[in-house]
Amino acid sequence: MAEALRVGIAGLGTVGASVVRLLARQENALAARCGRGVRVTAVSSRDRTRDRGFDLNRYTWFDDPVALAGSDEVDCVVELIGGADGPAKATVERAIATGKHVVTANKALLARHGLALARAAEQKGVALAFEASAAGGIPVVKTLREALAGNTITRIYGILNGTCNYILSRMETDGLSFAECLRDAQRLGYAEADPTFDVGGFDTAHKLAILTSLAFGTELDAEAIYIEGISSIAPIDIKMADELGYRIKLLGVAERTKTGIEQRVHPTMVPKSSAIAQVMGVTNAVTIDADAVRELTLVGPGAGGDATASAVISDIADVASGAVGAPFGRPVDRLDKPQRAPMQRHEGGYYVRLTAFDRPGTAATIVTRMAEADISLESIVQHRSEAAASRDPAGRSGTPVPVVLITYATTEAAIRMAVDKVIADGAVAEPPQVIRIERE
Amino acid sequence: MAEALRVGIAGLGTVGASVVRLLARQENALAARCGRGVRVTAVSSRDRTRDRGFDLNRYTWFDDPVALAGSDEVDCVVELIGGADGPAKATVERAIATGKHVVTANKALLARHGLALARAAEQKGVALAFEASAAGGIPVVKTLREALAGNTITRIYGILNGTCNYILSRMETDGLSFAECLRDAQRLGYAEADPTFDVGGFDTAHKLAILTSLAFGTELDAEAIYIEGISSIAPIDIKMADELGYRIKLLGVAERTKTGIEQRVHPTMVPKSSAIAQVMGVTNAVTIDADAVRELTLVGPGAGGDATASAVISDIADVASGAVGAPFGRPVDRLDKPQRAPMQRHEGGYYVRLTAFDRPGTAATIVTRMAEADISLESIVQHRSEAAASRDPAGRSGTPVPVVLITYATTEAAIRMAVDKVIADGAVAEPPQVIRIERE
Repeated sequence: MAEALRVGIAGLGTVGASVVRLLARQENALAARCGRGVRVTAVSSRDRTRDRGFDLNRYTWFDDPVALAGSDEVDCVVELIGGADGPAKATVERAIATGKHVVTANKALLARHGLALARAAEQKGVALAFEASAAGGIPVVKTLREALAGNTITRIYGILNGTCNYILSRMETDGLSFAECLRDAQRLGYAEADPTFDVGGFDTAHKLAILTSLAFGTELDAEAIYIEGISSIAPIDIKMADELGYRIKLLGVAERTKTGIEQRVHPTMVPKSSAIAQVMGVTNAVTIDADAVRELTLVGPGAGGDATASAVISDIADVASGAVGAPFGRPVDRLDKPQRAPMQRHEGGYYVRLTAFDRPGTAATIVTRMAEADISLESIVQHRSEAAASRDPAGRSGTPVPVVLITYATTEAAIRMAVDKVIADGAVAEPPQVIRIERE
Repeated sequence: MAEALRVGIAGLGTVGASVVRLLARQENALAARCGRGVRVTAVSSRDRTRDRGFDLNRYTWFDDPVALAGSDEVDCVVELIGGADGPAKATVERAIATGKHVVTANKALLARHGLALARAAEQKGVALAFEASAAGGIPVVKTLREALAGNTITRIYGILNGTCNYILSRMETDGLSFAECLRDAQRLGYAEADPTFDVGGFDTAHKLAILTSLAFGTELDAEAIYIEGISSIAPIDIKMADELGYRIKLLGVAERTKTGIEQRVHPTMVPKSSAIAQVMGVTNAVTIDADAVRELTLVGPGAGGDATASAVISDIADVASGAVGAPFGRPVDRLDKPQRAPMQRHEGGYYVRLTAFDRPGTAATIVTRMAEADISLESIVQHRSEAAASRDPAGRSGTPVPVVLITYATTEAAIRMAVDKVIADGAVAEPPQVIRIERE
């Protein structure tokens, strides 16, 4: 049997500690699987004193992860520090420069520097593996890079952030507001004290950038992603979605359209009967549309120490087995330049909720503005509250009431134009809510 | 760039023809991905004249697949002949013996001879890859063998036969009988003229045998599988399942229990809210329970030319990339001997439908027999038809009426004993229907 692969772990937070424990637990199985042992030899972390449930003295300790990356005692560096720059980047760069394989869960680093790092890894003939970066424990990177090699992928979309899916699920099941659900998510440890990165859609965008490159064989293009978070979603949107046969999910979507590659992150109406709509709570899911396989959906844990460690170990096992492919599925200079599809040209159905003044002519104004923009309406729903109706049976008070429109497929530009005109008409009391509908 | 991988295809049915077409379509992408070209050089089939939409003259033709397997023009033999023995086995054996990599979709061959073939492939240092054999286009073999390397798997279960799932779905959505749905499945090409292999559960069992070995690192043990098909499922079972919050699916289940490894194929009640219950029609799905990743579900096409070809090409791409791992995830002599858990010791809940004579004392007899076997009942449902009730308001005619019991967890042995006694008591007009309930 070949010599054991010596693994150095930079970052001993929840995921790093899980990796150490699981590697020990799976020692024999991994040796059988990989044809050689896999052994942690060195670790680095900010805090040496914290009890992680294992004996740190078994490993060489480095205060500086970059020194660990350069050490002769390590064949494979596992970067679990996090952050797009700083020590994480320095650690990965040093590991590659000194001829070590790299496994990382760092989506921010990859979204920003993935291409340069992949080029460096290629030149050195080392692995840059990142299964854990895109959807935690769901093996979507391997699926895109290897399992779907015979396919042309047309679209990939998914629930890539457990925090957002937890909040949207709770809003639906318990009829609570966004703020209430966010507080619960924070109490349960599903959301950070500053939740912007998750609820603003930025975490989803980082992951989407990686998946887009793998799916379409294009260079990473994180800056091209259109991003909207979930904080504007109101209980009435959840309720109206339900009434209309939809559920609201924060999706990351990458699609090859006739104008180019569209990458977008936003709250999305998905049919209640779709597979993705069934995914509730912190669970993640990814659906891939492709020519040969038609539709493939993977559902599993998007975060958590052990689930993320599972993905990290999958990469380590590949390295130990000698599977060192191109990080993004093909050599960097064979990745296509991504042609960006402008968001204004996005095509699809829309949910538009207007808080309209309840007075004669308002409905006509709204419908006319839609017609002028060539938008066909599939349905219009207007519920006056009973209280409002009894106060003002003739509907002449001008009290704001919600009016919900569902459009047939149209363009982002058309919707924006129509909505802007309705606002200019003075027909609405609040900025309209616009939510895109994703077809199955 | 290295020389192209020369592929010989034995069997040009639907899948074989798809493989040839997709390999041509993905030629550039595969070359970029694998670092070398992938090129079909030879083909073999029973019928040379059929129009398959491509020019056969581009490839060396072999009447005999075994001769193709031995040819010097081929590096990798793709066996798509089918059947556990005969030319398929001879082709694979000859390929391995002459040092060629083998890719096969042949579950029957693997279930029966997988271990011997894997040993031979190992000795020759060639690949024996079979992603397409277990769940068509769903990459479950790669997921088990590679992606879950850091996990101890406790259970794997799935819908592995599209014909059965189509029939059960139609029975539910259209309220039809098994026989009617089977006829429709045959008309649509989802079922063979002799449907026994599919509806009898044998196809599912072959696939399960492969998944069990990969999941638990054990030698294939297809003979140990307990098999029941779906032909006994009546519309009333579908209706009662719905009423009780379940859906009936033909599942293949492999589980590590305290008595050993349980492998079983049978109609199963799954909670309507579960992910697996959402899978309708010919779609397949596999759920894996494991310590690190908790629960991972893959949903996709289990059959069809292009979907199966997608899995075949994934294997070919791995071969071209030089990824030649042990076929069952570890060397054959490191696979454990499977300890069989006897079906009599299976533990779980049960649905029992009795066609009981509607007369005083029958219910008491049934309930007493259950209690004697230490079985606790979660619910008892007895619907007398209105017609029966109006004919015989006092319930003294002895007309058979359905009585459905849902039990708490008990053992197969206990259920069998109780049911046998109820039969011996003369309390039922027909053999009872017994369907196992699978926990989530």
